[in-house]
Amino acid sequence: MNSSRLEAFSDGVIAIIITIMVLELKTPHGSTFESLLPLTPIFLSYVLSFTYVGIYWNNHHHMLHTCQRVNGSILWANLHLLFWLSLFPFTTAWVGEDHIAALPTAFYGVILFMAAMAYWLLQHFIIAAQGEESLLRKAVGADWKGKVSPVLYVIGALLAFWSAAIAQLVYILVALLWFIPDRRIEKTLAAAGDVD
Amino acid sequence: MNSSRLEAFSDGVIAIIITIMVLELKTPHGSTFESLLPLTPIFLSYVLSFTYVGIYWNNHHHMLHTCQRVNGSILWANLHLLFWLSLFPFTTAWVGEDHIAALPTAFYGVILFMAAMAYWLLQHFIIAAQGEESLLRKAVGADWKGKVSPVLYVIGALLAFWSAAIAQLVYILVALLWFIPDRRIEKTLAAAGDVD
Amino acid sequence: MNSSRLEAFSDGVIAIIITIMVLELKTPHGSTFESLLPLTPIFLSYVLSFTYVGIYWNNHHHMLHTCQRVNGSILWANLHLLFWLSLFPFTTAWVGEDHIAALPTAFYGVILFMAAMAYWLLQHFIIAAQGEESLLRKAVGADWKGKVSPVLYVIGALLAFWSAAIAQLVYILVALLWFIPDRRIEKTLAAAGDVD
Amino acid sequence: MNSSRLEAFSDGVIAIIITIMVLELKTPHGSTFESLLPLTPIFLSYVLSFTYVGIYWNNHHHMLHTCQRVNGSILWANLHLLFWLSLFPFTTAWVGEDHIAALPTAFYGVILFMAAMAYWLLQHFIIAAQGEESLLRKAVGADWKGKVSPVLYVIGALLAFWSAAIAQLVYILVALLWFIPDRRIEKTLAAAGDVD
Repeated sequence: MNSSRLEAFSDGVIAIIITIMVLELKTPHGSTFESLLPLTPIFLSYVLSFTYVGIYWNNHHHMLHTCQRVNGSILWANLHLLFWLSLFPFTTAWVGEDHIAALPTAFYGVILFMAAMAYWLLQHFIIAAQGEESLLRKAVGADWKGKVSPVLYVIGALLAFWSAAIAQLVYILVALLWFIPDRRIEKTLAAAGDVD
Repeated sequence: MNSSRLEAFSDGVIAIIITIMVLELKTPHGSTFESLLPLTPIFLSYVLSFTYVGIYWNNHHHMLHTCQRVNGSILWANLHLLFWLSLFPFTTAWVGEDHIAALPTAFYGVILFMAAMAYWLLQHFIIAAQGEESLLRKAVGADWKGKVSPVLYVIGALLAFWSAAIAQLVYILVALLWFIPDRRIEKTLAAAGDVD
Repeated sequence: MNSSRLEAFSDGVIAIIITIMVLELKTPHGSTFESLLPLTPIFLSYVLSFTYVGIYWNNHHHMLHTCQRVNGSILWANLHLLFWLSLFPFTTAWVGEDHIAALPTAFYGVILFMAAMAYWLLQHFIIAAQGEESLLRKAVGADWKGKVSPVLYVIGALLAFWSAAIAQLVYILVALLWFIPDRRIEKTLAAAGDVD
Repeated sequence: MNSSRLEAFSDGVIAIIITIMVLELKTPHGSTFESLLPLTPIFLSYVLSFTYVGIYWNNHHHMLHTCQRVNGSILWANLHLLFWLSLFPFTTAWVGEDHIAALPTAFYGVILFMAAMAYWLLQHFIIAAQGEESLLRKAVGADWKGKVSPVLYVIGALLAFWSAAIAQLVYILVALLWFIPDRRIEKTLAAAGDVD
């Protein structure tokens, strides 16, 4: 199996995840500004999750781009990543339900952490499959963002029990950290010549 | 990254947006003509939003067609556009809930305005990436439709507080304006030779 | 624009339509056989609609296969077809709600009729775009199925006010009529040599 | 029609099936750990169904890979398979509703059985279309997994009336059996040279 089918399927799942989150924005029962106001926290958590799923789509795409052949481990590691991403709509809705509550905010951090671990695992299997001369390993390099993010998710999840607002700030900061597409891969690919 | 992946992902998201709007047409609880009648405003707002999303899909496709290479700015400008489009199901449902209320109709205009701005921003980044000899800049030309539409959305949104019906008429007029696919791009592409 | 993008987008929308219909099969509130029974009419109408959407996907694909170039009319005729197909989940759910009621069954026939008209319109525009030597016109030939079906839908819709069961039987018969993929197009394509 | 369109459409449907199952994880109404607990059985049945749909996607892809040309029988056998897969969200939600009840668990086994039969039928039509020298027949070989699984689903469904837990264990065991991608096909393809 080549990676293009894996990309297409992942794209489909991610497109659905990013779109069904909006279903949590339930139609207000009134037509006044006051009836719109309670949706604010749901809207804000939607914006954050939309950004995170966008980041994952972006980096996932860059990563698979370095990967020519797909084996069983890569395939299941990819489904494993999609599984954790599929929990974004749930955790987003729960945070939006009560945005100053500790547990939903901590839970959001746990899902972020699990997705980050799943992403790391997928990266690991692709590098392993590429062997010594792995293009992805060169591209990833020291991978400080990949190492720092899970730690920050855990810190955020723990901070949530002290202040949900500060925990959410940590999640926003990590999102900003990843906002810029992973240029390392782009650069390594460019240096190695186009692999398409 | 080439633009075909961006197109495929955008297509997926737009296909989902255009389809989940229909979920707002809740099953009537009776089997009489009277039980169907209350769905009329929801149905009409569905028709309008379906047309708008169709217009965006159409023009988005033509625009990306001129774009060979995708950079980080284009990628995020595209996700930004998809974000505002993803709010169509919500705003459509809200207008359908009470179609003579001012605020939902004004809000619909705001979302139309934001999507138009996001589209303009994406267009701007693609032109910037293409540099001096931008095919898209030639194709867009004076872009009077792109300039007039946001102004009309704002006028519509303001008019809503006076008469929701007239505001909705403005939105319908702008949709009719865009109904015809953007032939400028088609023509410029044809003149410049096929860029596929 | 070539037809492959139109196909991909249509596929996405049809895949979502065929799948969200299953959301009408609401989880039963008990764990007994009796709690499952009320879902029978919803399930049966789901089976019928699944078959119809499958037929449309199938024939739509064969039709677009003959079409190399897409113009504005074809594009909007295609969106128009997708619009009527997008109403299948709604009308399916309504028939499932009360399967012996006249109006929902008649309404189902109306949607079938509108989709058939939209399909015919799309076919018309593709033939027009292909000109004198239209491959699709040869393939479609006398098109007796395309002519008989809308008539039967109207008859079914009218019969519904006398007996919903008989009307539903008519819809099932038309589905059986179309069940076999449109071999005319396949044959004409084969005779004309592969046009891929 | 070549198989790539069939794959793309199937991918779309499977991507939606795997993702809408998560909608059953309804937002808890509280922010405590206790409000999260009732979701555990729904979550666990989601994990199992996600795995099963993942297995089907994986093997379906490998199977279609051996198939160059699609005829009407293959096309409808494929839609038939998608139909039974589309019932996964429903049966998953029902098991999650009351995970120690006999009937939902037995019903889950019935759907697994029907999907397995539909898969077998699709495989049968592809082999028939390939004729004497069928690549897929060689790849499938004795197909012991394909023969044992339906038997185990029936046994599981029957066991459910004695103990739902043991029935669910049987389903989990079959999933583990299939977890590893069908290397037979991969190997035969490799031996026969790449058929892409």
